[in-house]
Amino acid sequence: MPDRNRYLLEEARMPGQWYNIAADLPTPPAPPLHPGTGQPIGPDDLAPLFPQAIIAQEMSTERYIDIPEPVQEVFKMWRPSPLFRARRLEKALGTPAKIYYKYEGVSPAGSHKPNSAIPQAWYNAQEGVKKLCTETGAGQWGSSLAFAGGLFGLEVTVYQVRVSYDQKPYRRAMMETWGAQCIPSPSNTTDAGRAALAKDPNFMGSLGLAISEAVEVAAKNEDTKYALGSVLNHVLLHQTIVGQEAILQMEMAGDDPDVIIGCTGGGSNFAGIAFPFLGQQLRGEHGKRRFVAVEPAACPSLSRGKFAYDFGDTARLTPLVKMHTLGSTFTPPGFHAGGLRYHGMAPMLSHVADLGLIEAQAYQQKACFEAGVLFARTEGIVPAPEATHAVKGAIEEALRCKREGKAETILFCLSGHGHMDMAAYQAYFDGNLLDQDYDENELAMALSLLPQVA
Amino acid sequence: MPDRNRYLLEEARMPGQWYNIAADLPTPPAPPLHPGTGQPIGPDDLAPLFPQAIIAQEMSTERYIDIPEPVQEVFKMWRPSPLFRARRLEKALGTPAKIYYKYEGVSPAGSHKPNSAIPQAWYNAQEGVKKLCTETGAGQWGSSLAFAGGLFGLEVTVYQVRVSYDQKPYRRAMMETWGAQCIPSPSNTTDAGRAALAKDPNFMGSLGLAISEAVEVAAKNEDTKYALGSVLNHVLLHQTIVGQEAILQMEMAGDDPDVIIGCTGGGSNFAGIAFPFLGQQLRGEHGKRRFVAVEPAACPSLSRGKFAYDFGDTARLTPLVKMHTLGSTFTPPGFHAGGLRYHGMAPMLSHVADLGLIEAQAYQQKACFEAGVLFARTEGIVPAPEATHAVKGAIEEALRCKREGKAETILFCLSGHGHMDMAAYQAYFDGNLLDQDYDENELAMALSLLPQVA
Repeated sequence: MPDRNRYLLEEARMPGQWYNIAADLPTPPAPPLHPGTGQPIGPDDLAPLFPQAIIAQEMSTERYIDIPEPVQEVFKMWRPSPLFRARRLEKALGTPAKIYYKYEGVSPAGSHKPNSAIPQAWYNAQEGVKKLCTETGAGQWGSSLAFAGGLFGLEVTVYQVRVSYDQKPYRRAMMETWGAQCIPSPSNTTDAGRAALAKDPNFMGSLGLAISEAVEVAAKNEDTKYALGSVLNHVLLHQTIVGQEAILQMEMAGDDPDVIIGCTGGGSNFAGIAFPFLGQQLRGEHGKRRFVAVEPAACPSLSRGKFAYDFGDTARLTPLVKMHTLGSTFTPPGFHAGGLRYHGMAPMLSHVADLGLIEAQAYQQKACFEAGVLFARTEGIVPAPEATHAVKGAIEEALRCKREGKAETILFCLSGHGHMDMAAYQAYFDGNLLDQDYDENELAMALSLLPQVA
Repeated sequence: MPDRNRYLLEEARMPGQWYNIAADLPTPPAPPLHPGTGQPIGPDDLAPLFPQAIIAQEMSTERYIDIPEPVQEVFKMWRPSPLFRARRLEKALGTPAKIYYKYEGVSPAGSHKPNSAIPQAWYNAQEGVKKLCTETGAGQWGSSLAFAGGLFGLEVTVYQVRVSYDQKPYRRAMMETWGAQCIPSPSNTTDAGRAALAKDPNFMGSLGLAISEAVEVAAKNEDTKYALGSVLNHVLLHQTIVGQEAILQMEMAGDDPDVIIGCTGGGSNFAGIAFPFLGQQLRGEHGKRRFVAVEPAACPSLSRGKFAYDFGDTARLTPLVKMHTLGSTFTPPGFHAGGLRYHGMAPMLSHVADLGLIEAQAYQQKACFEAGVLFARTEGIVPAPEATHAVKGAIEEALRCKREGKAETILFCLSGHGHMDMAAYQAYFDGNLLDQDYDENELAMALSLLPQVA
């Protein structure tokens, strides 16, 4: 193996700007609507929840937005992150394809989530906010915001979906290590939580409900703002540093991806790796590439959801956003990739999908864990359950290349390591990890309950 | 913060040789003795357990030993590992000292252990060995050998100390993910294990006993060799890549360490960071520096052990080696830093300590977790319980510098991250993590039972 396996960027070459795809789209996405008036919302509507700088980013159509110097300084704890050539995986698959992966598990939280947590905490601290409130599924976002808040002197409260709170106690310990408070959702600390508990005292929770709880706390407390770990434009924007770096690293490798793959829950991880490459295509600087979003078969918002206005949360506290949605009342099964258990999909990514610029594929969790184990045994790194979906997607593309005799170049984002999710691997080896299907009737019901928008 | 926080070496600058301190010591260490004859052992005595290449390294006095190309290729999955300047920790402590840390948690196993697992597996595979057998405490070594064995097509069986097997199920899942079999020790698969269970069916195990089990399996099976994760000369040799890289990175930083710190269980992690710097001093290329080995107060082999010939294991199957020992019959309390629960200390490191070249300090685990939490809240990375001992040692030195008004440069090895040990942090936050003292009577008894050597 004479060629390199790992491509590292000099610290000085870390991109100093985020890429905003809104500048290059042929048509703008549909605007978020106020649920009361049905009219497009403005900055004032978001002011109770977010600082001004974040609201400006949410609505910006500037192509490039500067990453503040103090945010860059924190990023340099682990960024630029490495790009690897998966030579051992290629060999095991016997594929003529070249497989590259961008590895985001090198962050202190072990995932890509600090890429947005750090700037969100910094902008809030700059505007005098004292407390941040958020939700988390598997705990990757919650732990990342705990880490970020601590660095900038903010108190952080995290509502964690109860099934993950119970399944993944290690992430909770991590949030506490970084100084945050973690509360299982549904909780009795909010109206939304109490209502859910009254309906079902044993409810295992959902990201949609945890969002309701966190938003409620932020809306009711002057000194508290809300932070979201995916879905919104500014979060996708922050994650583009991943793709911006990958562009430079693919150049270092003297290669150019034909297919770009990421797993999708709320959409920010996929957008992070994909949008900078897609931007090249939209600006006519590069020919057409394939972009493949991989989602769990048990929560397939892009594959099976409706592209419609819906609420981002269960208690219907958020603005209405147009997205691929399974319905805000839909509760995904309690599978292990907790970070992908969300009923909707980022509006910007949904719009891009509606424009036919990306594809979606859905896989069951056993097949994903099988892919994760093969990856661990060849490339060493044990992927997080969420990231196994991207691995599965990449392996399927590599096997297609083998069948078709094509030496394509595949790039995927390995969004995090699985060191805190080994209980899921143990369940897989013990034969206790089963595929899970959502209830078709529940999906039909949830879709029938979508809000009516004129 | 204008200066850099992270110093990365180019892949091409990864050291191509290990450093062997045996070449530079003023006197050689006492030889290992055959327990039957009392005579120094030769290569033939070790042949049932180790491949020839490893035996040659164990006995070598060559100053530099080439790292085989295929081993270097695997290392490049994560090496060279980063060196960080701990600016946020310095600021939190208000110290004039500069603190640097070499971070080994970037390996797929999350610790420094693959540095020796990879070459050991490779040398065994080269000599046609099919199976490897080993022991593990916390699971860092066992998971690393599982990873390494898998890469080179070897079957791996790991005997894990039962208290760790129960406390740290995530590491076991990791071993299985990489394809190894993990057996709690004491087990009924060996004579040594059955004898221990007969004496106490609830025995929580010890590294010494797990070694006995693994050595027994290797000795009784033609196609099986044994691999040890610390203590022996060749393991310390393999870990010197850490210090070799750190020398180059401290030069990049334009700085020079006055104090070098590592945690010590069997001694390989500490030797890895310390020996290359100590070699400069022994060869007269550098003035005197301080080298501080930090060990758990509940298992203080350097601080409280006797420098005497002893067995490496509980069942007295190994050669006799001269080392700082608490006695091979001593069972350390079940504290969380399982990787430091060993009755002895590497003979080479013990010899270096006996020559007055290094210092030892012992701390209780609560103080170490407190240091680990401060580190996580400033530097981001959550240290493994073992590594918190090095963090504690570095903080104590930095506070001494503050008291004395000295701007010294401190370098320590952060040997691994704690993502798989978050249960220990949870216990710490819940107030369930207590300091543990060994039994003075048991220590006295164990020391009185040391073998008699003429």
